[in-house]
Amino acid sequence: MASRIVNVGLVQQRSQHDKGKNVAHACEGIAEAVRQGATLVVLPELFATDYFCQTEDPKFFEWAEPLDGPTIAQVAEVARDLQVVVVTPLFERRARGLYHNSLVVLGSDGAQLGAYRKMHIPEDPQFCEKFYFTPGSQGFSPIQTPGACLGTLICWDQWFPEAARAMALAGAEILVYPTAIGWMPSEKELLGDAQLDAWRTVQRSHAIANGTFVVAVNRVGREASSVGEVEFWGHSFVCDPMGRVIAEAGEQEQVIVVPCDLELITEQRHWWPFFRDRRIDSYDGLLERWIDVKGR
Amino acid sequence: MASRIVNVGLVQQRSQHDKGKNVAHACEGIAEAVRQGATLVVLPELFATDYFCQTEDPKFFEWAEPLDGPTIAQVAEVARDLQVVVVTPLFERRARGLYHNSLVVLGSDGAQLGAYRKMHIPEDPQFCEKFYFTPGSQGFSPIQTPGACLGTLICWDQWFPEAARAMALAGAEILVYPTAIGWMPSEKELLGDAQLDAWRTVQRSHAIANGTFVVAVNRVGREASSVGEVEFWGHSFVCDPMGRVIAEAGEQEQVIVVPCDLELITEQRHWWPFFRDRRIDSYDGLLERWIDVKGR
Repeated sequence: MASRIVNVGLVQQRSQHDKGKNVAHACEGIAEAVRQGATLVVLPELFATDYFCQTEDPKFFEWAEPLDGPTIAQVAEVARDLQVVVVTPLFERRARGLYHNSLVVLGSDGAQLGAYRKMHIPEDPQFCEKFYFTPGSQGFSPIQTPGACLGTLICWDQWFPEAARAMALAGAEILVYPTAIGWMPSEKELLGDAQLDAWRTVQRSHAIANGTFVVAVNRVGREASSVGEVEFWGHSFVCDPMGRVIAEAGEQEQVIVVPCDLELITEQRHWWPFFRDRRIDSYDGLLERWIDVKGR
Repeated sequence: MASRIVNVGLVQQRSQHDKGKNVAHACEGIAEAVRQGATLVVLPELFATDYFCQTEDPKFFEWAEPLDGPTIAQVAEVARDLQVVVVTPLFERRARGLYHNSLVVLGSDGAQLGAYRKMHIPEDPQFCEKFYFTPGSQGFSPIQTPGACLGTLICWDQWFPEAARAMALAGAEILVYPTAIGWMPSEKELLGDAQLDAWRTVQRSHAIANGTFVVAVNRVGREASSVGEVEFWGHSFVCDPMGRVIAEAGEQEQVIVVPCDLELITEQRHWWPFFRDRRIDSYDGLLERWIDVKGR
């Protein structure tokens, strides 16, 4: 069997509470990944700033930038200089009063290969994203890069099998999840391990069900706000099309580079041909909010 | 928080290569589960016979029975005598030349509460199910029992997040998977652990993504055919709505009874409200076989 290897770099980093420092630090991470052989690098969700969604405060809208703003320009320059593709998350200002939780895929010439706006927006205590982010309306279209077709999704999207499936059906070879997920101090002792394992498990299942690679890149570090703090748990990982975790980071800053042989996708789907057997004649219910049945 | 506990019995058994013996043995398993407190018992896929699908031979159609045939009648009598609900798989003869891989949910009065015909049919070497079984056309409707609303699915269905989601949207509290899955001797050393783990992982992910319990009941034992053998791997398990495995059998015959508190479903969905955030406006692609894009 031939191989088609893409070396994927994961830049797991903490916020230094300053956009300039964070972007510079991410650029150092990209360079480190390239030194290790990466041709595709993924940064964490909203890497340029603190995770400001712990509270609802309109002052944070000042941190947003357009898709062609200075942060993207700065990373694009690094992408071009180092000839590497970079999945670059961004707090996007699309118009006055219209903001998205987005990412741009920058090509190795610094040009934009495509963008994605987070489709599923969470809203929990200290994850008040519905206040800030308008849900994307572009749907689920993978972004083709020279090395691989990327199903780019963001954080909360990772809990929805629909998003992974839709990306795979449109040709995604690697599902990519920039992420900002962590423990609440009050829950960590009782639920921390189960939360981390559920997060890893549901993403591994997308690899299994779709015969794709999955790359999840999380933040690390504690970030405080006026209402408490979140401890971002790291554990960025890559799993293969059988759902096997082939590389996993710890809970500190880390740059890892993982060779992914995309030919494994074909092999896996030959043995587990789920696309052959999907009952598309019977999936109408998936477009419903709920199937109301008396008493349930 | 109030609790609503259902004690679920899993009867993991091997075939004794004789329908009379297998059905009698399953009835003993049901009785053992009831002694341990079960009010709902699940049997493995096609428990009454050998897993005949290793080869394609029309002689095996003789083993099929109608939904109101003698096997169901015999189990129904036990269900009534012991006042227990039994998920009872069956090789169903629906008409001359029309067969299904089915199950009947028998109530504690022996009456049929509902039936399910396997929707996703596999076809691999030694799992030649497309020769024998017409795919179900009834869709994904849970079956209400006094203790719980059951999303009854069968084996290969477990790899399809669509089936789990459709059942959950229609009110299923417990996803139930009678199963016949095993290792091929030629693959076990290299892939055995990964296959088992992928099987467990994808089903745990259905619990996580949908906030339901999952109950998987597999066969055990080696079964030979003219083309080789399959070693059914057991490892029947129950996981809670956070995907935590709360009970798991080994690789031998075993009857286990697991208390499932259905109130955990509400609690879990309050914290991880995926149903709130599904993008039903953007899931049309899930009804497609594939999204053709040039070059992918």
